[in-house]
Amino acid sequence: MIIDPKDPVAVAQALIRCESVTPAEGGAQALLESLLAPLGFAVARPTFSEPDTPDVANLYARRGEGPAFVFAGHTDVVPPGDLARWREGPFSGVIVDGELHGRGAVDMKGAVACMVAAVARRPEAAPVAFLITGDEEGPSINGTSKLLEWAAGRGERFSACLLGEPTNPEALGDVAKIGRRGSLSAVVTLQGAQGHVAYPHLADNPLRRLGPALAALMDEPLDEGTAHFQPSHLEVVGVESGTGAFNVIPASATLQFNVRFNDRHTPDSLKALLTDRLAKALGPDAFAIAFQPRPGEAFLTAPGAFVDLVSDAVEAETGRRPALTTGGGTSDARFIKSYCPVVEFGLVGQTMHQVDERVAVADLETLTRIYERALVAACG
Amino acid sequence: MIIDPKDPVAVAQALIRCESVTPAEGGAQALLESLLAPLGFAVARPTFSEPDTPDVANLYARRGEGPAFVFAGHTDVVPPGDLARWREGPFSGVIVDGELHGRGAVDMKGAVACMVAAVARRPEAAPVAFLITGDEEGPSINGTSKLLEWAAGRGERFSACLLGEPTNPEALGDVAKIGRRGSLSAVVTLQGAQGHVAYPHLADNPLRRLGPALAALMDEPLDEGTAHFQPSHLEVVGVESGTGAFNVIPASATLQFNVRFNDRHTPDSLKALLTDRLAKALGPDAFAIAFQPRPGEAFLTAPGAFVDLVSDAVEAETGRRPALTTGGGTSDARFIKSYCPVVEFGLVGQTMHQVDERVAVADLETLTRIYERALVAACG
Ligand SMILES: [Zn+2]
Ligand SMILES: [Zn+2]
Repeated sequence: MIIDPKDPVAVAQALIRCESVTPAEGGAQALLESLLAPLGFAVARPTFSEPDTPDVANLYARRGEGPAFVFAGHTDVVPPGDLARWREGPFSGVIVDGELHGRGAVDMKGAVACMVAAVARRPEAAPVAFLITGDEEGPSINGTSKLLEWAAGRGERFSACLLGEPTNPEALGDVAKIGRRGSLSAVVTLQGAQGHVAYPHLADNPLRRLGPALAALMDEPLDEGTAHFQPSHLEVVGVESGTGAFNVIPASATLQFNVRFNDRHTPDSLKALLTDRLAKALGPDAFAIAFQPRPGEAFLTAPGAFVDLVSDAVEAETGRRPALTTGGGTSDARFIKSYCPVVEFGLVGQTMHQVDERVAVADLETLTRIYERALVAACG
Repeated sequence: MIIDPKDPVAVAQALIRCESVTPAEGGAQALLESLLAPLGFAVARPTFSEPDTPDVANLYARRGEGPAFVFAGHTDVVPPGDLARWREGPFSGVIVDGELHGRGAVDMKGAVACMVAAVARRPEAAPVAFLITGDEEGPSINGTSKLLEWAAGRGERFSACLLGEPTNPEALGDVAKIGRRGSLSAVVTLQGAQGHVAYPHLADNPLRRLGPALAALMDEPLDEGTAHFQPSHLEVVGVESGTGAFNVIPASATLQFNVRFNDRHTPDSLKALLTDRLAKALGPDAFAIAFQPRPGEAFLTAPGAFVDLVSDAVEAETGRRPALTTGGGTSDARFIKSYCPVVEFGLVGQTMHQVDERVAVADLETLTRIYERALVAACG
């Protein structure tokens, strides 16, 4: 079957039909190579490896010389879950009542298809590049982070990047993301001394310190938000203690937490703050805290020329200027921001990661024209 | 080998050499039958069964007619644990430096041996009975509770009972137990709504209610103690929540607790009190509480004639009048108390349930004489 690269719907359908649940490539990146190469792109497809994680396929493509405007995205998708609950097959790519159905329709094979259509419709636009990974929904270890290093090592330079994550809550034009909160996780261990419930004076129940530990972590706000960020927010996501026997006071207890934090904090400043709060509540020797490796830093692409360029393109096609936010989960923008300014704008996220993920066919055409405008403006 | 039933050391050695870890009979009750029958006891050895628990051997013996004075005890022992850590084998029954070594030396094969020696030395004392179970250290389902019902069904009646659990913390004569606290356990479930940590407003973290739940259960005393009892005491013994992922707010959390309570409460009054405290702290619909079946009730054998009889016997042999307490863990006295007054007095408990469990040989002789005095006084 010949796919017209100028048609985002045809490209999106073909991508959805590739079963590329992380870490499977599923033919999605081979398809992109077959579409981009005829459009004048030099395409490389490096696979990255690391012990204890699966190998992951990535794609880098460039047209023209010099610091390139970058379209960034991912071809991997989250698992479809219970197949029986889908109205249309998760890899069917069928159109029903003006909507294209399938896993990845909005997150983010649909947007990747719009990027391809944009560069196909504007063959003169250069220098432009594609940073496409197959490890955005997984551990994100063998994906964009390594692809950026790999490209930098080959002398690739970037002027700005548009990442196609589904940023719009309700309708195309709602929101562009200009930063993301950081993310920090930890395990706190409360030490005690095991014993029999009938003789509590011979034991030291660590669960008597759990309430104060939870309060120290969750009760006092971490900040009140900043110019472009919501207040930082901590959630305890797990607790674990006990032998299973009702007559045994446990020797220790653990709790797990995650913080999504704004640009008031760095991972290090936050580690110090939280350790201090626990020490004040429990005493310095009553607990141990182990922070998870690779915390995400908060970052902001400050409003300015590139943010305006994207906002102008969105407004020209939708009639609405997008709100500039930094909320929600992390994305690969946290890696890209170290190389060039990055803004995220994509499809409507309502059905992402859900059963019956789908996108309005009309949105694919509108997003293609937004990406065309951004591409032309950035390369102009 | 012929064992002299008047010699508590020989009987204790022989019992220790029976490997009667719960629920195994291990030959211990067969040995008792062979010793008691020649002393004029009619011996029955009923085995009790219940779905999902092992069958357990029990022994009932009686000499004489009418409401009997009862010696109660158990032949089962807790597992020896790591054999390599024992100086002498746990089933060796050897005497080293005046101490008899082995699992059950103090809890409570040693005391059972003293009971046998007491009835052997006082062949005229009657009516006297033995209530011996093999399920005291296990679930206590096919043990004393059923043996009492079985005996009652056969018309057996009891005047008073001396239970041989190791009541003395330091030296023979320290403590007789005249009651026990009750025990009540429960699982509390805190309901919430699962979600992603990046979007906490779409979720409801049940762990935000865990601190208040812990405080509601543990912070305020349940009472200040009563004439013969310590204050009631609650320990949370376990908590469990979380998916294992740092980015998922869990849907629910559970906590487990146990209360040891005095005669200010019944299981039902305590259930109402604790449910009410949680409802006040969390709201009536924010939690569910499931109480474990078969709570133990608190009970007291009020100081009076039988308590004095035991105290007099102890004082006559040790020169000290035992303190009368109700602390520590539960025992089969919680079943016996519904049939007749029950007092507990046995050996020194320091090594019970531990590696190198052992008893001073001299204590076995002294306890035998205490039991003789109680027997004669009760049958007189
Ligand atoms: Zn995505
Ligand atoms: Zn015992």
